[in-house]
Amino acid sequence: MTAPPLLSFDDFHEGQVFDLGRRALSAEEIKAFARDWDPQPFHTDEAAAAASSFDGLCASGWHTGCVFMRMLVDGLLSRCKSMGSPGLDEVRWLAPVRPGQELVGRVTIGACKASRSKPDRGFISLTGELADAETGAVVYRMVAPVMVGR
Amino acid sequence: MTAPPLLSFDDFHEGQVFDLGRRALSAEEIKAFARDWDPQPFHTDEAAAAASSFDGLCASGWHTGCVFMRMLVDGLLSRCKSMGSPGLDEVRWLAPVRPGQELVGRVTIGACKASRSKPDRGFISLTGELADAETGAVVYRMVAPVMVGR
Repeated sequence: MTAPPLLSFDDFHEGQVFDLGRRALSAEEIKAFARDWDPQPFHTDEAAAAASSFDGLCASGWHTGCVFMRMLVDGLLSRCKSMGSPGLDEVRWLAPVRPGQELVGRVTIGACKASRSKPDRGFISLTGELADAETGAVVYRMVAPVMVGR
Repeated sequence: MTAPPLLSFDDFHEGQVFDLGRRALSAEEIKAFARDWDPQPFHTDEAAAAASSFDGLCASGWHTGCVFMRMLVDGLLSRCKSMGSPGLDEVRWLAPVRPGQELVGRVTIGACKASRSKPDRGFISLTGELADAETGAVVYRMVAPVMVGR
């Protein structure tokens, strides 16, 4: 068995949807990530978080973003000729992510534009979302261009 | 000695600049972060990175963003009544971040708007940057609102 060929820029079109699977974060994971990268009390300390406007421990938004990125690599970018990204156009943390909360990820392909200056690649706009697996409420959304080889 | 009082929304005004210090990432740190959160070959493997359009190992953009976030917490958010953020308006990875590259961080305060619905807080727009310590070239920029208590 050989691996399927990598998807190229020309395999994408607006409106495609890729499911990225599920993920939940434990309280320990939330606190460990925050101690490294975002040590604000509502991410690192249960008592301080309970007394904050978040009403309890919640994941750093950067943690949520990294979780989505890992799901995006595993579910899509590792299967295509990804050449990186110049940035993020928008990120929204729409609701706190709580310990044990089951999240489902998906990514929707937006505009696909061939590069004018570099014929070996194109830009694909991705809209990524994490939603609560039970209610379907979107807790995280990001919009970003990705460069894909052709 | 007691800690100075936390800065409140009313202590901020457009144009303030806060220096956030310096940071460099080792190749081991770059690869370890990427294995967890962004396992694309140009972030995890020196040979694959050398053969890629990046011409060598570079940090995941999420790693760069997390490094900036940690510097922002240590240098500013831990000293003010931070109440979190609804998201990021723009993130730009302007140049690859290389192993050992010394980066300097700074944040500039933009528009400051009291909340209309919640009198206990206001929104401050932050423009954060990481620049090469030698050349001054900006490698990372993000624009984001942060909620600060008053």
